[in-house]
Amino acid sequence: MNTWGYNLRLSIFGESHGPAIGIIVDGLPPGEPVDPAGIASEMRRRAPGQDVTATARQEGDQVEILSGLLDGRTTNAPLCAVIRNRDARPEEYGAKLRPGHADWIALLKYGGFADQRGGGHFSGRLTAPLVFAGAVAKQSLARRGVAITGRAVRIGQTGDPEKMRDEILAAKADGDSVGGIVEAVATGAPIGLGQPFFASFESVAASLLFAIPAVKGVEFGDGFALAGLRGSQANDQLTLENGQIRALTNHNGGILGGLTNGEPIVVRAAVKPTPSIAKPQRTVDAETMRETELSVRGRHDPCIVPRAVPVVEAALALSVLDCLLGL
Amino acid sequence: MNTWGYNLRLSIFGESHGPAIGIIVDGLPPGEPVDPAGIASEMRRRAPGQDVTATARQEGDQVEILSGLLDGRTTNAPLCAVIRNRDARPEEYGAKLRPGHADWIALLKYGGFADQRGGGHFSGRLTAPLVFAGAVAKQSLARRGVAITGRAVRIGQTGDPEKMRDEILAAKADGDSVGGIVEAVATGAPIGLGQPFFASFESVAASLLFAIPAVKGVEFGDGFALAGLRGSQANDQLTLENGQIRALTNHNGGILGGLTNGEPIVVRAAVKPTPSIAKPQRTVDAETMRETELSVRGRHDPCIVPRAVPVVEAALALSVLDCLLGL
Amino acid sequence: MNTWGYNLRLSIFGESHGPAIGIIVDGLPPGEPVDPAGIASEMRRRAPGQDVTATARQEGDQVEILSGLLDGRTTNAPLCAVIRNRDARPEEYGAKLRPGHADWIALLKYGGFADQRGGGHFSGRLTAPLVFAGAVAKQSLARRGVAITGRAVRIGQTGDPEKMRDEILAAKADGDSVGGIVEAVATGAPIGLGQPFFASFESVAASLLFAIPAVKGVEFGDGFALAGLRGSQANDQLTLENGQIRALTNHNGGILGGLTNGEPIVVRAAVKPTPSIAKPQRTVDAETMRETELSVRGRHDPCIVPRAVPVVEAALALSVLDCLLGL
Amino acid sequence: MNTWGYNLRLSIFGESHGPAIGIIVDGLPPGEPVDPAGIASEMRRRAPGQDVTATARQEGDQVEILSGLLDGRTTNAPLCAVIRNRDARPEEYGAKLRPGHADWIALLKYGGFADQRGGGHFSGRLTAPLVFAGAVAKQSLARRGVAITGRAVRIGQTGDPEKMRDEILAAKADGDSVGGIVEAVATGAPIGLGQPFFASFESVAASLLFAIPAVKGVEFGDGFALAGLRGSQANDQLTLENGQIRALTNHNGGILGGLTNGEPIVVRAAVKPTPSIAKPQRTVDAETMRETELSVRGRHDPCIVPRAVPVVEAALALSVLDCLLGL
Repeated sequence: MNTWGYNLRLSIFGESHGPAIGIIVDGLPPGEPVDPAGIASEMRRRAPGQDVTATARQEGDQVEILSGLLDGRTTNAPLCAVIRNRDARPEEYGAKLRPGHADWIALLKYGGFADQRGGGHFSGRLTAPLVFAGAVAKQSLARRGVAITGRAVRIGQTGDPEKMRDEILAAKADGDSVGGIVEAVATGAPIGLGQPFFASFESVAASLLFAIPAVKGVEFGDGFALAGLRGSQANDQLTLENGQIRALTNHNGGILGGLTNGEPIVVRAAVKPTPSIAKPQRTVDAETMRETELSVRGRHDPCIVPRAVPVVEAALALSVLDCLLGL
Repeated sequence: MNTWGYNLRLSIFGESHGPAIGIIVDGLPPGEPVDPAGIASEMRRRAPGQDVTATARQEGDQVEILSGLLDGRTTNAPLCAVIRNRDARPEEYGAKLRPGHADWIALLKYGGFADQRGGGHFSGRLTAPLVFAGAVAKQSLARRGVAITGRAVRIGQTGDPEKMRDEILAAKADGDSVGGIVEAVATGAPIGLGQPFFASFESVAASLLFAIPAVKGVEFGDGFALAGLRGSQANDQLTLENGQIRALTNHNGGILGGLTNGEPIVVRAAVKPTPSIAKPQRTVDAETMRETELSVRGRHDPCIVPRAVPVVEAALALSVLDCLLGL
Repeated sequence: MNTWGYNLRLSIFGESHGPAIGIIVDGLPPGEPVDPAGIASEMRRRAPGQDVTATARQEGDQVEILSGLLDGRTTNAPLCAVIRNRDARPEEYGAKLRPGHADWIALLKYGGFADQRGGGHFSGRLTAPLVFAGAVAKQSLARRGVAITGRAVRIGQTGDPEKMRDEILAAKADGDSVGGIVEAVATGAPIGLGQPFFASFESVAASLLFAIPAVKGVEFGDGFALAGLRGSQANDQLTLENGQIRALTNHNGGILGGLTNGEPIVVRAAVKPTPSIAKPQRTVDAETMRETELSVRGRHDPCIVPRAVPVVEAALALSVLDCLLGL
Repeated sequence: MNTWGYNLRLSIFGESHGPAIGIIVDGLPPGEPVDPAGIASEMRRRAPGQDVTATARQEGDQVEILSGLLDGRTTNAPLCAVIRNRDARPEEYGAKLRPGHADWIALLKYGGFADQRGGGHFSGRLTAPLVFAGAVAKQSLARRGVAITGRAVRIGQTGDPEKMRDEILAAKADGDSVGGIVEAVATGAPIGLGQPFFASFESVAASLLFAIPAVKGVEFGDGFALAGLRGSQANDQLTLENGQIRALTNHNGGILGGLTNGEPIVVRAAVKPTPSIAKPQRTVDAETMRETELSVRGRHDPCIVPRAVPVVEAALALSVLDCLLGL
């Protein structure tokens, strides 16, 4: 079931080392300007091969739009975007199961027919089409006064932006990797996005955020910290500002009862450390069905978190736009 | 959009102080025995009025099954269950907006037409039908060797089960409330539940968990703690056990690449403190549109966490069964 | 999968001889007045036991609304309506498979667990909740200037309204039944309902019309007769009327390219003759697995067509409203 | 909403004169062999430019598969197929609204932003991806013993295959077009495909058949003719054959109560005459908003029916496979 969304419908396709990856974005209003420069800039934020802290795989991640666009504006038809895989090296993947990946589960589930080279359809590379869709969504949102921003708020043991790069390089030097937390914020979103219960804004956004490989936790507002608070501390008390009701604080991350309340929407996603590491790990060889050790060489990120920032932003942007189109 | 699920479809209805609440459960296999005693026992775990730490509202939460059951077994038809509201007191709710609730947002979103008495369709009372559906799912899962358990792992400042009741009573004594964290675990689930990307097991479960009012964070396995780990610490290395591949540890909470890996599925939900508290809070009177103070009287839980345990379990059970029926 | 609709979501439940049948209608705008008299009047049009040409089963088909209504208006929450089965006589159904019904297929498909008394969940009785939902939809549409009407345009061999009753009575006298065609028309619907391709107005409406037991054909506008026409005869040429583009004819039944064009929406549904007849038919006894003859006694309609008129109208009304809420 | 299907999910994209058209087919079982020759052969049956009775547009309709295929077999991932538009001539379309097309409705609905050249996303050209998906489905079905066939059973005034070509050429000579009826049959399908009510086999198939531009009627089995029959004539009486229950006749087209009964599934679709004709027609110029006449030149089919045969077959094949994957 590779489809997501109530009002904005995403359908994603592709494998890491197949011919191409891509996405259909259906349900955009007609007449929305789509700025290619803005899209390219978002794609670059996620693209590999740009820094010593990231994988050396060279992918320009150039997007070709096959449909749904005329004279730079959306039409009535679904937008289909395709990104060719140019630097695929499927031969680099062997029979040793990579711990922390779904290789062996996919092997069992799909009877050996899955394209598992580099994770195949499970690959983090599939987040590139998501960033494309998010870039389009951001442009639509910007015209409606909604801005999406994001940043790494934690890398490994540090929450200090100045020390994050060091944390990554230290892990790399050890042949290891490191995780982190990404925070994304939407400001300017209207009051009332989302529905009670099953289509709560949190449900909509979390279902998309947890589609991102490596995300293992999602929280809104003060999130898990709310567990330790009293109601009198956690409640966002109300006041009047220019005749409008608004909250004095934002412990709830802009969402109450599943609906946005006009305050900034604040979400954090926990990103686990990249499973592909050079350090030797115990595993099983799927061909011989014997225990073995694996030291992953290939081209891998010692820390996926910086590249995950635009992905988490994309997921938030798409969630906001999906709900906004349902108002 | 009050429908959830790919293979098992839930449709929920009702308001806290209307005639009844209920749920349709569609997609159960025919011939599944449904044990009324097991259901009643689950309903009691969530029902109000049972302890000094919970609301005094007296609701037996007796379930009437209107369809889909014959001679104690599921038929081919959707199961519809109805719970009458017996101790409704809609007159207790006034025009003062309750901080931490969606009252004022709903007021704006629905133009004043929402039934907002006690939160209406937003009420935590809507989790009763979810517990019913979860109880049915648990019985189906049990016959397939899957067990679901849950517990509060944190109440306010304490993780010690022996001190949790004190933490609640202390908050109550202060006219306040307190939050917590619920953990649920599914053991015995088959390998391969879930799909890559949009229908990852995490996406499926989180979309349902975040439908529960008061849940503000969801994490799987080590969750947010994974952010602080190295890949070599976070990866669950692989071994052979009786010829089967399995993980040596379970940092990933039984899920890799969106698929279950046969280890226990571990999920935690952060539950915010009940917003309805006796302590005075700043708010706005929706009728006069003036600032005011509110001290919520009514019948409210100083801590919803113990009653949330079966709800989180239900969400996990329904997620496992939904994915299992898609295998 | 007992759910239908893109913007208006229906979830139906119940069996012919179980405790109750009913429906959830989700997605209605808040604040819509719901007039109980209008609903009762629609329910009576479909209800059994009213005329010698219909089944003698006595069902008042009184609707109890459990949720989603406050002070006679829709709230934000799903509307759930329940109709109790009062005159159920499950003992009247034996082991002989009724030709023209799904009994034997259900027996195989559901392993003997389906409630098949009187067709169970397959029964035409399930159209009662659909008429309820349609009645609510009609009221919403009326306030938007859309009127839905319907009539039998053919009963057996006659298209003459004055002879239809005779046709039915003749079939009844023979211990037989007779089919017909129902036409429903929506006037005043806005231009542009529906989407190109999968969510064409025809697709939306046909998917609901073919859910009605006994409907075996659906056509829009001139329908099958268009096959025999030239393009110059079938095209609805265009003109200007008060500055508005409109069609000079309506061979396309108000729909072009899957979208409504502002002309009356015209749909016809072919209704097969009631399969339950007194005349002896060859069949199989499901218990003995021997060939036998069946002469259906019970209480059955010699012609379902008159009672199907409000059902087809309901399906059209719900289709128009579903699309209209998506504009 | 350009997505269709419960178990097999189709997402379609593209415009007639844009860069490309295509489809995502999600939910195919892994390991299904996909034979390119079989696909090419189906594509040719629908492709234009092959006969004097069809449009002169030259499109090879070569399919590029971007994902979901490895070593000639389906993987676990969605299949995405792209067909480039090579002989697009968008300049041939002017401001005069073409009667019988959705041009003017789309103009109003999409505020002038739709790509309407040659109908854009509404074009019959979008059936090419559907035929691709159908070809894949047919191959999967063939391995499961299900065969799909189709033919024109009526062209204009004739049901005689030998006279059909004359009927088309006569219409062409008159600068006119002609409609017809396509029948498709599925043999070998298992008993029990479909669900009662909303997901009846008829609902599933009709929702897809009515997505095909120009289809204005759909009937199963004897369809509209059933309206004129008695129950004793229309019922398919039952017998035992080698210990299996089966029907003696097939008036119901292989479907009872929304479920397949093991007999051949028979469906007919009424196809209206191509609206684009050389004969002058009254219409409106969308730029000047004045009444005018239009004589459509361009490259158009005098009769779409022969090319519609593989499209109707595709819709039937996809419907059978969708239901079959849900068993």
